[in-house]
Amino acid sequence: MTADLTITDVRLTPVLISDPPLLNTQGVHQPYATRLIVEVVTAGGTCGFGETYGDTKYLEIARPLAAALPGRQVTDLNGLFTLASGVEVDSGRVENSVDVGGLRGVQTAGKLRLSVVSAFEVACLDALGKARDLPVHALLGHKLRDRVEYSGYLFYRWEQHPGGQGEPDDWGAATDPAGVVAQARRFAEDYGFSSFKLKGGVYEPDEEIAAVRALAAAFPGSPLRLDPNGAWSVPTSLRVAAELRDVLQYLEDPTSGTPGMAEVAGQAGVPLATNMCVTTFPEIPEAFATGAVQVVLSDHHYWGGLHRTRELAAVCRTFGVGLSMHSNTHLGISLAAMTHVAATVPNLDYACDSHYPWQAEDVLTRRLTFRDGCVDVPDAPGLGVEVDRERLAALHQRWLDDDGTMRDRDDAAAMRKADPGWVTPGVPRW
Amino acid sequence: MTADLTITDVRLTPVLISDPPLLNTQGVHQPYATRLIVEVVTAGGTCGFGETYGDTKYLEIARPLAAALPGRQVTDLNGLFTLASGVEVDSGRVENSVDVGGLRGVQTAGKLRLSVVSAFEVACLDALGKARDLPVHALLGHKLRDRVEYSGYLFYRWEQHPGGQGEPDDWGAATDPAGVVAQARRFAEDYGFSSFKLKGGVYEPDEEIAAVRALAAAFPGSPLRLDPNGAWSVPTSLRVAAELRDVLQYLEDPTSGTPGMAEVAGQAGVPLATNMCVTTFPEIPEAFATGAVQVVLSDHHYWGGLHRTRELAAVCRTFGVGLSMHSNTHLGISLAAMTHVAATVPNLDYACDSHYPWQAEDVLTRRLTFRDGCVDVPDAPGLGVEVDRERLAALHQRWLDDDGTMRDRDDAAAMRKADPGWVTPGVPRW
Repeated sequence: MTADLTITDVRLTPVLISDPPLLNTQGVHQPYATRLIVEVVTAGGTCGFGETYGDTKYLEIARPLAAALPGRQVTDLNGLFTLASGVEVDSGRVENSVDVGGLRGVQTAGKLRLSVVSAFEVACLDALGKARDLPVHALLGHKLRDRVEYSGYLFYRWEQHPGGQGEPDDWGAATDPAGVVAQARRFAEDYGFSSFKLKGGVYEPDEEIAAVRALAAAFPGSPLRLDPNGAWSVPTSLRVAAELRDVLQYLEDPTSGTPGMAEVAGQAGVPLATNMCVTTFPEIPEAFATGAVQVVLSDHHYWGGLHRTRELAAVCRTFGVGLSMHSNTHLGISLAAMTHVAATVPNLDYACDSHYPWQAEDVLTRRLTFRDGCVDVPDAPGLGVEVDRERLAALHQRWLDDDGTMRDRDDAAAMRKADPGWVTPGVPRW
Repeated sequence: MTADLTITDVRLTPVLISDPPLLNTQGVHQPYATRLIVEVVTAGGTCGFGETYGDTKYLEIARPLAAALPGRQVTDLNGLFTLASGVEVDSGRVENSVDVGGLRGVQTAGKLRLSVVSAFEVACLDALGKARDLPVHALLGHKLRDRVEYSGYLFYRWEQHPGGQGEPDDWGAATDPAGVVAQARRFAEDYGFSSFKLKGGVYEPDEEIAAVRALAAAFPGSPLRLDPNGAWSVPTSLRVAAELRDVLQYLEDPTSGTPGMAEVAGQAGVPLATNMCVTTFPEIPEAFATGAVQVVLSDHHYWGGLHRTRELAAVCRTFGVGLSMHSNTHLGISLAAMTHVAATVPNLDYACDSHYPWQAEDVLTRRLTFRDGCVDVPDAPGLGVEVDRERLAALHQRWLDDDGTMRDRDDAAAMRKADPGWVTPGVPRW
């Protein structure tokens, strides 16, 4: 007699986790970032976990979806998309807010739904794996490698948040080439990363070119990436590409929009990657036909889960387009999910991005670790991670206690704490 | 303690099954058709089954692949492709034989390998599902529908094989419009099919146009398809399309090769489907870019299994190309596999093809049945079918006893039994 896979309950737990003052072209990370932990419970007594964005607009979709699940099978991943498509999304909220800090291109109801579904899909896979003694990677056709490589994700940052808000850390500031190199050295020493990505679009392009050249000098031969989140014009993008093409593995979203990316791609002499102009399947045909992107940055939160990520990989394989992996602020549940799916994809041929090293707090009893820049693919049932319910409750309490200012990501508002005159820069910024 | 999923043994059982004298542009089906039954056995004592083509060139790939599997996990579907790519294929055999009766476009070693892998993948999924109490559809993200629709697959045919060879049946001949309509009526009565496909390329195009118009008159409003297997020139294709576009759901492979298909598609006024110019992922970009096909006919044997079929579906969804399902002569194991995967694909929006009604023999204890033209999606563990080992042994004995003439499909050789001067027609034939 095997365990009953019928879903009996779905628990949604928004949390606030400490986040360092990482800079991007929109502003700066708030002292706390919100995530939503999704827990699926089966009649057989198994619990499965997933996580995604926790902003109000995501919670509003997650609640009716959670309410619709009891009585359905935890195996019914395909049905999640049908259910989610029936969830009404407040169009005013979609149009009047910016997604993922304004760093994901045009926001749509469909994108929000997929990001919510992703956490439910991962939670169902975790529960199914635990109930049937199978690691998640085995539910995705099995790992092709025993560990997944990640790149060191470098940020310009301040020493502390404005007014000393939030939780302090000992990383210090990184606002110039020397600071960026020092950050990379610590990443390399602590975690063994041997490729690096710098979040750009923060300073004048010449400053960022200097930082990348300093990285190239400090880590000769290491794959490097620069991502200004679409902040540059086409001419600026081409100028940066010309300066850095000898050291960049790829240039990520130099400019905004598929036509501009196509114009840059035609002359840049370096592959262009994106997690902005292609983050859903309908955006693919134009981008591929015009040669706008050479590397798609998969992200199971964006694309609707682990199966969809594998489908994206198949589309990229078919059209000879490269595949890497994007990251926003996330916890260990998502790192495990990212690692499982990455391990199963033959053409995930770049080191993945992850914010995880910046997250000092987590909901796991034991954090995942990077060794030689890699995370070992868990072989325990499900995701292979265990949630610490006390820790989860404490981080949820922080969310409950919040006066509302941290529950919705707003990097520009955070920036105004330091620079009251700050307005979200238009694009192109340079 | 759950059952050990380590593969301990793989059994390959080629069989010969009776096949009626069905006509196509290459010739006629032989009295017996060969299939390979693949059985995967786990340390936990579970057996899983798959089936594929059984011609010598497939057996030569299946044997080393089978030998490489013991010790691996039955969950390791992704690894099958890596293993298969290492199997040497006799290039002389690839170049000097025609694939699937010459009806699948250019033969390559890669295509042969994928067709072999497909049976191993299905067998592994069947074993995994049985060992973990999950139907195969649940291993593919869960069924989206409870039954899968099939179309009635009509063939021009003789009453019996030349010289009365093989096993007789009571269908009689169908060599003109009246015979085709009578066949369709029996299909509709016995199985409830409400859409029909006619295998064409057998007679002069005007004859086949008349047959389709007779079907349209007998079954007003029923979706109809015509498939001459690439036998026509571009002008002939366009002439047939002009005559039939008001009654055809789609026209399948009117002409050979992607450029010709693109030329026809541009003016035909009816969607073109293919299981000839696009049967692997690398063939997709050119076909989609040139608008050569509006419907890809998936076939898990061609594409490398059920997961790859889902990936093909994702590619088609992404590019707004339709998806239907192709069939060659097959048994109930494959019909179950087809039904499972079709049930999980949101955009499998056409009735699937199946030769199954033509197969009087099977290796199952209980055959799958068509009701209202549909097959119920099995919910029992694995594929949900049971293999009759006595029947399997008897059909294998027929293969052992064969003098070699039936072990490799050759529709032209079969035709020469009736018409000694027959040579495989070149294309375009008309």
